[in-house]
Amino acid sequence: MNATQIDRARIESLVRRAIAGGSLGTPSASRPDLGLSQDPPGWVDGKPNLRVSISARHVHLTDEHVEILFGAGSVLEPDKDLYQDGFYAAKQTVMIVGPRRRMLPSVRVLGPTRGASQVELAFTDSISLGIDAPVRHSGHIDGTPGCVLVGPVGSVQLEQGVIRAARHVHMNYFDAEHFGVSNGDMMQLKVTSHECTTVFDDVLVRADEAAKLEVHIDTDEGNACFLDAASEVELTKGGCGCHK
Amino acid sequence: MNATQIDRARIESLVRRAIAGGSLGTPSASRPDLGLSQDPPGWVDGKPNLRVSISARHVHLTDEHVEILFGAGSVLEPDKDLYQDGFYAAKQTVMIVGPRRRMLPSVRVLGPTRGASQVELAFTDSISLGIDAPVRHSGHIDGTPGCVLVGPVGSVQLEQGVIRAARHVHMNYFDAEHFGVSNGDMMQLKVTSHECTTVFDDVLVRADEAAKLEVHIDTDEGNACFLDAASEVELTKGGCGCHK
Repeated sequence: MNATQIDRARIESLVRRAIAGGSLGTPSASRPDLGLSQDPPGWVDGKPNLRVSISARHVHLTDEHVEILFGAGSVLEPDKDLYQDGFYAAKQTVMIVGPRRRMLPSVRVLGPTRGASQVELAFTDSISLGIDAPVRHSGHIDGTPGCVLVGPVGSVQLEQGVIRAARHVHMNYFDAEHFGVSNGDMMQLKVTSHECTTVFDDVLVRADEAAKLEVHIDTDEGNACFLDAASEVELTKGGCGCHK
Repeated sequence: MNATQIDRARIESLVRRAIAGGSLGTPSASRPDLGLSQDPPGWVDGKPNLRVSISARHVHLTDEHVEILFGAGSVLEPDKDLYQDGFYAAKQTVMIVGPRRRMLPSVRVLGPTRGASQVELAFTDSISLGIDAPVRHSGHIDGTPGCVLVGPVGSVQLEQGVIRAARHVHMNYFDAEHFGVSNGDMMQLKVTSHECTTVFDDVLVRADEAAKLEVHIDTDEGNACFLDAASEVELTKGGCGCHK
């Protein structure tokens, strides 16, 4: 990469960040090295601030399915903001019904709406529902099992879309540069926890302009490493993160 | 360790193995290097054969508690042998009742009976029961929470004994020698699984004369790494097992 390419990449990144709602501004004394007037999203004290979150079972819906399930003209009502800006847990929940009428009575809907509805379960959930949900990254639902969603007004037969969400880490391009990784790379997360320290391989990098550094694991993974009682979390590019 | 000590250690090991029901015999051509007439317990093709098992929630009972729960004169009735010789899943199950009357209706009893009753749960189970079960190694139950056990004839109030069983690996002394570890050491288990490869640290070595090489993890851990679909399992002494 020559000097011109670096400039183009930097300009493109800044423009994308501005479009995404970030502050472009004039590079100031605070982060002149990054060409920013302030720290990148999620950074604390001038560096990435790793957060590891357990992503409990949840549902993404299309606008059309929101109206079928909750009534004509219905929209998702934000209840609680998620750590990633612009995303929220909605007030609405749905019932998920699997084969043989096994069901989960109240699963939270996350917003905003999407182009395809999708159900993200932990493995434990999929066993209790009797659905053989494959490990997939969000949005990759071709050939996955379906289920029935039941809301207060109507129900939807999903032909596909039930997955066990694969581990991933959201980050912005400054985080990616800090770790020396790119969108689509795999990283490793080490969770240090008394008697049950665990290293998770296969953590997919999902980098965009505005994301804040956050690993998402499911409840089974969170339970396996007892995340709530963890003394340290460490995200690394190569190697395993277990060598201090 | 000098030659005399080595002889004493070897003799002691052979005697322990004979007491435990193993075949002592005369060292023959098959394992003259180990001083054995046949492979150590669990070995296949002249080397340790690693098995990784998910230890689902279960209960250990005292003789006294068996009689209270199932009636005077009752004993545990073996239903299915476990991989470890002499241990079995009993026909009997008990109900486990936690605070606020949450319960698990049917939890398998493992035999033989023990000196203290103990309930081993996955973290998911302890959440559903509302019991804050600590991660402990089997038998180390001082200060742990209790629960109520209900059988078809009677019930028992356990004052303590509800734990989340810590990861461990059973092995005999020949396995331990093979890996260069001793009873009480910690090892690491790598489970290679599509999209969810996981390295478990803190795997406690429980070595004795007659055990067969077997790692026990709980259902949360098994689900986190999708053990059923794993392509490879690897147990290592130091390092993390992630460097091939």
